[in-house]
Amino acid sequence: MIRLDTSEDGFEAGFASLLDMARDTTARVDGAVAEIIAQVRRSGDSALLELTARFDRWQPASAEALRVTPAEIDAALAECDPALIAALDHAATRIERFHRAQMPADVLLDDPAGLSLGMRWGAIDAVGIYVPGGKAAYPSSVLMNAIPARVAGVSRVAMCVPTPGGVLNPLVLAAARRAGVSEVWRIGGAQAIAALAWGTASIPPVDRVAGPGNAYVAEAKRQVFGRVGIDSIAGPSEVVVIADRWQDPARVAMDLLAQAEHDESAQSILITDSATLAGAVERAVQDALQTLPRAAIAGESWARNGAVIVARSLEEAAALSDRLAPEHLELLVEEPRALFARIRHAGAAFLGGFCPEALGDYIAGPNHVLPTGRTARFASGLSVFDFLKRTTWVDATQEGLAAIGPDAVLLAEAEGLGAHAQSIAMRLGR
Amino acid sequence: MIRLDTSEDGFEAGFASLLDMARDTTARVDGAVAEIIAQVRRSGDSALLELTARFDRWQPASAEALRVTPAEIDAALAECDPALIAALDHAATRIERFHRAQMPADVLLDDPAGLSLGMRWGAIDAVGIYVPGGKAAYPSSVLMNAIPARVAGVSRVAMCVPTPGGVLNPLVLAAARRAGVSEVWRIGGAQAIAALAWGTASIPPVDRVAGPGNAYVAEAKRQVFGRVGIDSIAGPSEVVVIADRWQDPARVAMDLLAQAEHDESAQSILITDSATLAGAVERAVQDALQTLPRAAIAGESWARNGAVIVARSLEEAAALSDRLAPEHLELLVEEPRALFARIRHAGAAFLGGFCPEALGDYIAGPNHVLPTGRTARFASGLSVFDFLKRTTWVDATQEGLAAIGPDAVLLAEAEGLGAHAQSIAMRLGR
Repeated sequence: MIRLDTSEDGFEAGFASLLDMARDTTARVDGAVAEIIAQVRRSGDSALLELTARFDRWQPASAEALRVTPAEIDAALAECDPALIAALDHAATRIERFHRAQMPADVLLDDPAGLSLGMRWGAIDAVGIYVPGGKAAYPSSVLMNAIPARVAGVSRVAMCVPTPGGVLNPLVLAAARRAGVSEVWRIGGAQAIAALAWGTASIPPVDRVAGPGNAYVAEAKRQVFGRVGIDSIAGPSEVVVIADRWQDPARVAMDLLAQAEHDESAQSILITDSATLAGAVERAVQDALQTLPRAAIAGESWARNGAVIVARSLEEAAALSDRLAPEHLELLVEEPRALFARIRHAGAAFLGGFCPEALGDYIAGPNHVLPTGRTARFASGLSVFDFLKRTTWVDATQEGLAAIGPDAVLLAEAEGLGAHAQSIAMRLGR
Repeated sequence: MIRLDTSEDGFEAGFASLLDMARDTTARVDGAVAEIIAQVRRSGDSALLELTARFDRWQPASAEALRVTPAEIDAALAECDPALIAALDHAATRIERFHRAQMPADVLLDDPAGLSLGMRWGAIDAVGIYVPGGKAAYPSSVLMNAIPARVAGVSRVAMCVPTPGGVLNPLVLAAARRAGVSEVWRIGGAQAIAALAWGTASIPPVDRVAGPGNAYVAEAKRQVFGRVGIDSIAGPSEVVVIADRWQDPARVAMDLLAQAEHDESAQSILITDSATLAGAVERAVQDALQTLPRAAIAGESWARNGAVIVARSLEEAAALSDRLAPEHLELLVEEPRALFARIRHAGAAFLGGFCPEALGDYIAGPNHVLPTGRTARFASGLSVFDFLKRTTWVDATQEGLAAIGPDAVLLAEAEGLGAHAQSIAMRLGR
């Protein structure tokens, strides 16, 4: 754990090393992934059967056995605690409402020269959602990835989830049903991404792939990029908590640990204008680690990547946070809206003492798939925009062409593109 | 040149081979590019001096000599034909107006449970624009890349342009001035992308890099992706022209050749419901190739990648176009708006007989940087959205937390994330 104080010498050097801290220890698997993709392109379904047996340790009888049937989803739903199903539905309803509010409007511009110009939004036809299996099989991720696609108007949402040993998480299937997923496939790893991007006899190809995954999945997304669209490749998760002297140290500590419990490479940073609070939070973290179920992971993350920064003021704290451009930002301060107005770079912000970040992971409404590793400087969370694309259009009358065509001809000639110039000039009657 | 007719046997096979045609013959340069990026990261400015001498064949005296001074831009402007400067200004004004109309609104949602949710748009701080030098130094590309950034509110736009032999295109500098570029650097290739992404002593790093380039530039963008954002990596350009029997074959032919003259790997496809027009356009292409200044390139592109498809109806033509998902789509038909309503996938559309695609390359207003190679299925043209990012936010009162917190606790517990659950539960007073 790193302690820094902006009023001490050496702060800049310490903060710079925090900014440069490489937490992503992903192994290079590009060769192995290229082979898997080539095998799926070459052998299609039979490659999927073989790779599933090898990596997920169960042997599907046929390609049809890779598909999770509606009856299996019904059975899974019947297995789930009704209170959990209700909670999932509550979350889904709120996530849908927020993402509907994101839907953009078309642009139409009738301009003085007599042309009509526009920009039309449309949904992608088919999307693949990857859902990690095993320990990280999170129903909340199914909602967060599939709902924006459905709200955007995507008609086909194909989901792939590995089932190590053949075992499926019933709540993941319940989430898929609730989110409007069209097809569920028991396929994991790079072979799932390859099947979604290139298609097989059983699985028609999609146009875009989204969702988190391990190093193989991330590398496979990199390699199919261009053939299909991909979402961003997520690194380890992180939170910055800006807290003032009025906060309860135990709550601040638990918010830091909620981030830290994701995995050992997660990062939790407290920035406060109160040295007293800083010390109290450090002690509260150690107290909480005595009882937390995932204390081993959270403690390791906190020890390795955690930081406590004492700043001269909340304004200075906000400026430091912008340099970190965190995935998640909590503003545990008396006037969170005023402080939020100073923030330029963050994936998602949580304002005030009754808004722990975990609320946003599950139920608040905004997406929990967010830019990590300082990429909030230029990137954004998953949204309906990831599942929409734009077509711009121009409609020119003869008068409109006469008004703007001659200058286009000049520019085309200056660039040495004669056919460009002539295609306009011959319609000007010259 | 490929001829197809949807009513003939073998059409599907022929069309499938058109869809799979690999026009991108880019050489693999990943090793060389990785070395260049490593050198720039290691040696900064001095690497730029050495690489510029090696690749651009001129020796900058110092890092300061890499910067194009305002006085040099003034001198370049004085050199340009005033009519061209006026045309550039006309184009810039129209491009600005269209991109301003794209600017999205923030989202604010006060929800029934008593929470406030929102999504706030903000500009990226600093952006790098790459402009190819040599034969492809296009002032129009400067406008199309820099104006959306400035309209989005990006405060620093750094432009890199190679100057082979030390030579600069004055009109490119005039376009940079008009578009509001903040800095111009005489640096090209992978070293320019590396300098923009990682920074040197002279060039502060940017957050996002945009703009076209050769194989080295494209590969460098791939390699710095993650460190900074990048725009899409453009492949060879293409147009689909849907024309009905009422069109002038000479105009249709010139529109096809305007695309073909870009380079040998460009592709022009005519789809028509009239076999008579198809034949007449083929002859008109050959006629025009007798006199076009870039006939060698356009003729090679047409011979290698061109296609003429006769369809049974315009509706069938639209469906075929959607399978091609072209970068540019011209609708040279009597009722272009009705046909456009049937189109789902295209980067940009040009409606009616007085709207040749070249108008959009220069002056119409929408961007000319568009998704190529069937990626319009999921990707969009350059726009203000490429230079904006979103921060979502949640503001919960104690009552709001009480309304939605308990279900979030259930879901967190189901996912085995105890600190997530406790961070909410301890605020519920449980």
